[in-house]
Amino acid sequence: MTRPLPCRDVFDLPEGIIYLDGNSLGPLPKAAAERVAHTVSGEWGAMLIGGWNGAGWIDLPQRVGDRIAPLIGAPPGSVIAGDTTSVQLYKALSAALALHPDRAEILSEAGNFPTDLYIAEGLVAQVPGRRLRTEPRDAIIEAIGPETAVVMLTQVDYRTGALHDMAAVTEAAHAAGAAVVWDLAHSAGALPVDLGAVGAEFAVGCGYKYLNGGPGAPAFIYVRPDLQERVAPALSGWLGHAAPFDFDPGYRPAEGIVRMQVGTPGVLSMSALDAALEIWEDVDVTEVRAVSIALADLFITEAETRCEGHGLELVTPRDGARRGSQVSFRCPNGYAVMQALIAEGVVGDFRAPDLIRFGFAPLYNTEDEIIEAAKRLAVILAERRWDRPGFLARAKVT
Amino acid sequence: MTRPLPCRDVFDLPEGIIYLDGNSLGPLPKAAAERVAHTVSGEWGAMLIGGWNGAGWIDLPQRVGDRIAPLIGAPPGSVIAGDTTSVQLYKALSAALALHPDRAEILSEAGNFPTDLYIAEGLVAQVPGRRLRTEPRDAIIEAIGPETAVVMLTQVDYRTGALHDMAAVTEAAHAAGAAVVWDLAHSAGALPVDLGAVGAEFAVGCGYKYLNGGPGAPAFIYVRPDLQERVAPALSGWLGHAAPFDFDPGYRPAEGIVRMQVGTPGVLSMSALDAALEIWEDVDVTEVRAVSIALADLFITEAETRCEGHGLELVTPRDGARRGSQVSFRCPNGYAVMQALIAEGVVGDFRAPDLIRFGFAPLYNTEDEIIEAAKRLAVILAERRWDRPGFLARAKVT
Repeated sequence: MTRPLPCRDVFDLPEGIIYLDGNSLGPLPKAAAERVAHTVSGEWGAMLIGGWNGAGWIDLPQRVGDRIAPLIGAPPGSVIAGDTTSVQLYKALSAALALHPDRAEILSEAGNFPTDLYIAEGLVAQVPGRRLRTEPRDAIIEAIGPETAVVMLTQVDYRTGALHDMAAVTEAAHAAGAAVVWDLAHSAGALPVDLGAVGAEFAVGCGYKYLNGGPGAPAFIYVRPDLQERVAPALSGWLGHAAPFDFDPGYRPAEGIVRMQVGTPGVLSMSALDAALEIWEDVDVTEVRAVSIALADLFITEAETRCEGHGLELVTPRDGARRGSQVSFRCPNGYAVMQALIAEGVVGDFRAPDLIRFGFAPLYNTEDEIIEAAKRLAVILAERRWDRPGFLARAKVT
Repeated sequence: MTRPLPCRDVFDLPEGIIYLDGNSLGPLPKAAAERVAHTVSGEWGAMLIGGWNGAGWIDLPQRVGDRIAPLIGAPPGSVIAGDTTSVQLYKALSAALALHPDRAEILSEAGNFPTDLYIAEGLVAQVPGRRLRTEPRDAIIEAIGPETAVVMLTQVDYRTGALHDMAAVTEAAHAAGAAVVWDLAHSAGALPVDLGAVGAEFAVGCGYKYLNGGPGAPAFIYVRPDLQERVAPALSGWLGHAAPFDFDPGYRPAEGIVRMQVGTPGVLSMSALDAALEIWEDVDVTEVRAVSIALADLFITEAETRCEGHGLELVTPRDGARRGSQVSFRCPNGYAVMQALIAEGVVGDFRAPDLIRFGFAPLYNTEDEIIEAAKRLAVILAERRWDRPGFLARAKVT
């Protein structure tokens, strides 16, 4: 029994805002607000240290991981939440390199999300003989070779929304004997992912975009079950130890995915994410995907029709199957245009140098909103509203 | 104008509990509950993505760091909050090793808190030619030598409460050309620390013990100001970049302490910690330290007098100047005794194999509580209450 989409009543959405930026930060689920209040007063306040067992904080990262797992085609016990996406990526990459000690290369895309490249840079700087190689998007599969230890890619491009063919890349990597690390930041909760079918070794992702876990929500990491007993995380912390409360002086990794945990999890943020994930008990991500494609198709049509002649250029694949859940246009004066649009109650975002970006979340976005957003964009462009003297100073800059 | 101690009204403390475990998890400050509720509904809910600038989330880790700085003798701009203590330690150690590329050794104490040793183990396993060496507590200074890149110690021993002489160890390390990393987990908010005077290169610490930031609160890291432009964090994430929203493909570290930031900070947990730290505007940590010593002295006297003949053996230095803010006794059947004590409303904790541990937090602990705690401990030992059939099964195990 699934809930019909949208299910806006799940969220505490501000009045009068058309929110097309859930791919940066999802809105507040009412259940998250209630849960955090309870965690603060009913658990921390009332149970004190007893909350670790009494309120189940100690297992919460695994329970949250198990809620995320079905969204990404992962079995129970293969995902754990915690840390940030960047830190999770460091763990995944270091573990992937350790699986291939004789191969030098982390291969990635030149246009990958910068933190992915920065983290890889920092890791290879630690480890002599390893290097980061980047290639253009379309040259990745060809570039995989005997030197490739791991291919690291983000499934959905954060600027264009273009989707990698996860199965094809993973297959090519495996054919060359390399591992893969998928960054699912813009995938989890936006489209069905099937890590199991694809056979990816590692994946990481973000809790605060389409999973609506709140600002800076914990990230997550997936390790393919058959590898869990072999991987050695570089970040070997006490909550990844087989028996943390034995206080052994030597590190002995926990069984299974728990070894990818490091320090003490942030329980307040984790509780918000846990509550935000409850919606997926009643909503099917396949249906979310279908609606997302329809909303984005509608926005492309409406925006292109209404804004004709104002220089918008679609950079997102027109074929819904080849993009994530966002639409981006190259737009002259894009920064100012987006500020003007936000001032008019349509929240998207801007990505340098000239992209205006709109994310679609079928949990709360409606067709009417999408049409209205395109209308307001057209008015702003037609009236050059962003170009009025002093506009930027007055605009509600978010 | 400082507030008199204790200032229990700052906290939301459960009735009928004598809480001597603030060194594991500090209790809930009322201001933290209010602040988190506001951050959830008034910021995340109302401002959505606009909260990053509008509510100042983006600078929050620095503001929290600046609140912690005076407690540890650090100047503004030298501390930043985020991640977990374990992850912060990895950053500090990797940066310290990078300062000394020709020295092989991380030197630590065999009895250091396990996660510190585990993190060092994980780091040296990444980097060929580096190793972790541990020595007994009293042999550390002598062990520092030309191979020592960095000395890593926890100022207050988590079991015994014994305090390292931070000035002497740091001086010895510097005399040998090595760097130091101090773990202040049991120091910050418990006793005055003067990193500036000592000249330590790095320090890390915990937000959820004496700083009362909530379960799994963000940790913090300190980098000595003159080193900030030189250190290269292994975990080079986008929020440590000089211009994260330029989305440069190459990593370029931010100026100052911000480069020690990695991913997107957990705003809900960070807000709780920020509010919890407000108390230090009105309370002097020097006074907290004086009261803490007096409370611990009182507890030692009361417990030893009242529990005589039941095998308690003090493992904490009797000299207040040589310990942190806790008292531990070796205690036969310590685990069961502590469970019985918790069932009687006195919350301390147990550390394997046989230590019962009591933390003292002058912000909320009173002399009357300390005397009452010793009385109840004496009754439990005298009546062998922990030894009654089925006791453990019935006890409220926390």
